[in-house]
Amino acid sequence: MGNSLTSRSQDYSQWYNDLILKGGLADYSAVRGCMVIKPYGFGLWENMRDVLDRKFKETGHQNAYFPLFVPKSLFEAEEKNAEGFAKECAVVTHYRLKADPDNKGKLIVDPNARLEEELVVRPTSEAIIWNTYKNWIQSYRDLPILINQWANVVRWEMRTRLFLRTAEFLWQEGHTAHATKAEAIEETKKMLDVYADFAEQYMALPVLRGVKSANERFAGAEDTYCIEALMQDGKALQAGTSHFLGQNFAKAFDVKFADKENKLEYVWATSWGVSTRLIGALVMAHSDDEGLVIPPRIAPLQVVIVPIYSKDEAMKARLDAKAGEIIKELRAKGVSVKYDNDDSNRPGWKFAEHELRGVPVRIALGPRDMENNLAEVARRDTKEKLSVSLDGISNYVADLLEEIQQQMFNKALKFREENSRNADTWEEFVRLLDEQPGFIYAHWDGTPETEEKIKELTKATIRCIPLDNPQEEGKCILTGSPSAQRVVFARAY
Amino acid sequence: MGNSLTSRSQDYSQWYNDLILKGGLADYSAVRGCMVIKPYGFGLWENMRDVLDRKFKETGHQNAYFPLFVPKSLFEAEEKNAEGFAKECAVVTHYRLKADPDNKGKLIVDPNARLEEELVVRPTSEAIIWNTYKNWIQSYRDLPILINQWANVVRWEMRTRLFLRTAEFLWQEGHTAHATKAEAIEETKKMLDVYADFAEQYMALPVLRGVKSANERFAGAEDTYCIEALMQDGKALQAGTSHFLGQNFAKAFDVKFADKENKLEYVWATSWGVSTRLIGALVMAHSDDEGLVIPPRIAPLQVVIVPIYSKDEAMKARLDAKAGEIIKELRAKGVSVKYDNDDSNRPGWKFAEHELRGVPVRIALGPRDMENNLAEVARRDTKEKLSVSLDGISNYVADLLEEIQQQMFNKALKFREENSRNADTWEEFVRLLDEQPGFIYAHWDGTPETEEKIKELTKATIRCIPLDNPQEEGKCILTGSPSAQRVVFARAY
Repeated sequence: MGNSLTSRSQDYSQWYNDLILKGGLADYSAVRGCMVIKPYGFGLWENMRDVLDRKFKETGHQNAYFPLFVPKSLFEAEEKNAEGFAKECAVVTHYRLKADPDNKGKLIVDPNARLEEELVVRPTSEAIIWNTYKNWIQSYRDLPILINQWANVVRWEMRTRLFLRTAEFLWQEGHTAHATKAEAIEETKKMLDVYADFAEQYMALPVLRGVKSANERFAGAEDTYCIEALMQDGKALQAGTSHFLGQNFAKAFDVKFADKENKLEYVWATSWGVSTRLIGALVMAHSDDEGLVIPPRIAPLQVVIVPIYSKDEAMKARLDAKAGEIIKELRAKGVSVKYDNDDSNRPGWKFAEHELRGVPVRIALGPRDMENNLAEVARRDTKEKLSVSLDGISNYVADLLEEIQQQMFNKALKFREENSRNADTWEEFVRLLDEQPGFIYAHWDGTPETEEKIKELTKATIRCIPLDNPQEEGKCILTGSPSAQRVVFARAY
Repeated sequence: MGNSLTSRSQDYSQWYNDLILKGGLADYSAVRGCMVIKPYGFGLWENMRDVLDRKFKETGHQNAYFPLFVPKSLFEAEEKNAEGFAKECAVVTHYRLKADPDNKGKLIVDPNARLEEELVVRPTSEAIIWNTYKNWIQSYRDLPILINQWANVVRWEMRTRLFLRTAEFLWQEGHTAHATKAEAIEETKKMLDVYADFAEQYMALPVLRGVKSANERFAGAEDTYCIEALMQDGKALQAGTSHFLGQNFAKAFDVKFADKENKLEYVWATSWGVSTRLIGALVMAHSDDEGLVIPPRIAPLQVVIVPIYSKDEAMKARLDAKAGEIIKELRAKGVSVKYDNDDSNRPGWKFAEHELRGVPVRIALGPRDMENNLAEVARRDTKEKLSVSLDGISNYVADLLEEIQQQMFNKALKFREENSRNADTWEEFVRLLDEQPGFIYAHWDGTPETEEKIKELTKATIRCIPLDNPQEEGKCILTGSPSAQRVVFARAY
């Protein structure tokens, strides 16, 4: 219909970019690696954010806001964290521009306005936050601190992709402080479950819950828990992480509390985050060659009604009146609905446009159907079209939205199951990676060196060691050394 | 009660800082001029944001997100805007840190990672947004664009104050594009009304609606509309601005559209914003020597219930049960309520704490009252205490919250009326400024030079020329030149 999308089989990567750009989710910007999130994409993010924010509050967290800038001396305090992020930091060095004396109308950085200490634009906020918590924590009565922040962060990535890897992105970062190790680990796991439930119940995205190997751990963490999703091209995507930070940041920033026996102890920490990257995961997991497919529970627009006008003005008025009724009923049920009665576009063009944008349900109201008390209901996910009685159509549509939500999850789960395999030898492992990519369950000797070597040879990494992983004796696919469990390998975004 | 607040008469400025810090709204940070917004302050901001966001959406706007960074070449494109903000820009010049070879564990800016073009951290987003709109606008069918963004911005202010003037702050910025001048001006005024209604109906803050003089105009605007509020010390505070940008940005970024006759025209623009500065206005307008006073409609917590426990365990259970009932009823009415039954603090300490934090209504439930089927209800604004029957207490409290909201507005309005005066001579003007500061209505000859001179002599500025200003012949208080209307002067935050 003139959208000229690239198909998945033609060029998966181009298909993805086409969907993001033509589906109206985002646009490139004048800033290297940064994107513009357009209203439709931002509406999706708002819906995701609102659900997560409610879940965070239900689990006792409050929002706060910490500075964008991290003074270099704080940034470098936790050594591993600093080392992990130093290579991709945007650094503010000056605080003023001035007129360019050689070039009228142009500006130059004022060399007299150099900062005494450089400021790092936050790539993550542990440093600035733990430097603040230091002042808030004296005794066990000040604990736990359960704070979340919705913010922008900057990581100067060299190779960027819309939503999946951008120099600036939006996220939330939870930062909690606890009196005991057990409580901090419990929090880490609790928030992983919040993420997993959100991904599965709202994004219709089945995820593996697991722990990262040392190589893939967050810089400065003792343990990184993650949820991992599988995309339609068989590559994995890390969809959220929850870190048990031990006492690393408490030690780096000297944050101690007096326990009930008045003994000074270092505080235990967690941090956890998901980002606008989730939108990339959503697109890659569900969409098809006609455009976006968005799960109803987070769709910016759930239902669109398109009237098929004839030249008969009386019929036009009847269609408008009936549409008005349906809209009123749907809105009363909390369903978002738009009446697309713009005369300047033909119905076929509109159908293609709403398909491209992934609106879950389309209702077409035409003269002939109207005479028969019917409407055509089309679902975006399966592209099925059904003639539905206008009596009780709003109930039908509300139920259908829930059915679509459920079936999208089931479909994605089935895909993941069909693309999860065991590999018992190196040959099998390499063949699967190339011919049937997906989650590959294989034995590994547990050493960072072997993991690194496998990555060098195949670009596959350990996505996670699943929680409650069955223990099974075996031999490492690369070294043949003994292994007590399989771990999940994949190539990843 | 140990809070040891400075009183207003002692030191108004210190009183303000005490309230922000001890009331739990914000804290200083390790970054010069930047603050931490604490959960209680952020809860207030969330409530304000949610109301505004709803109003923006009701008036047809959608949210989007544009990059934090503005390349220098875009930043300087609109000359007046660039000139206005150049002096207070944070500038990113490098994208990497590296290990300091001379200092183990320390990092330095990597001199090999200098950006080809410096990036300005947005002080406002017209430049980056109009550079984007250029790609989105071809014809009149693409207009209007009605977009808002919630974001952080950075202005490197030399003298900062918590909330009122910080190097980084949170705000929303609307950026709209229109086919005609009339439509853009209508939008500018519409959004000013949205701000004024929000300030008056939710913040209980009466505001003057007016237009800025040329000296006080936003850099790059044709006209700046504003709302101006009066603080308890008689100083004014600009609480929101809405700018008619003419075709300045369209010309700077070459944004044209084909009109219905297929003629190319430059696009008309507006921008409008309010920020976390509003929290400073709220504090200064309503609070007293015992702490914050927060209007119920935006209070993070509207009601607190404090049980007065005796040693009688059965009575304790009765108090808890009764509190549970009241909480359930209040929540069903959409009232936020907390049961402060923490045994480790005494009731008197809690009363002072909730007063400090400005919780609008406190209910104390004690054994003797309970026997008489009564509770003590205390309102924060007037400090009145009333014995209220437990029958129907939730209705009573819900009504009381609305009454408090209204009375807070009335009180602030009365204060403004009592502190708005005419000055007809220079002597009177100067005397009022020093002895009875407030809004001073005075004649002005309309020249930027005179305004500048008055500012130099008195630190007073023209806050606005009120909309629908009565026309009245007079003579400029400084120069004696003829004037057609009074304008509003004040010293300002």
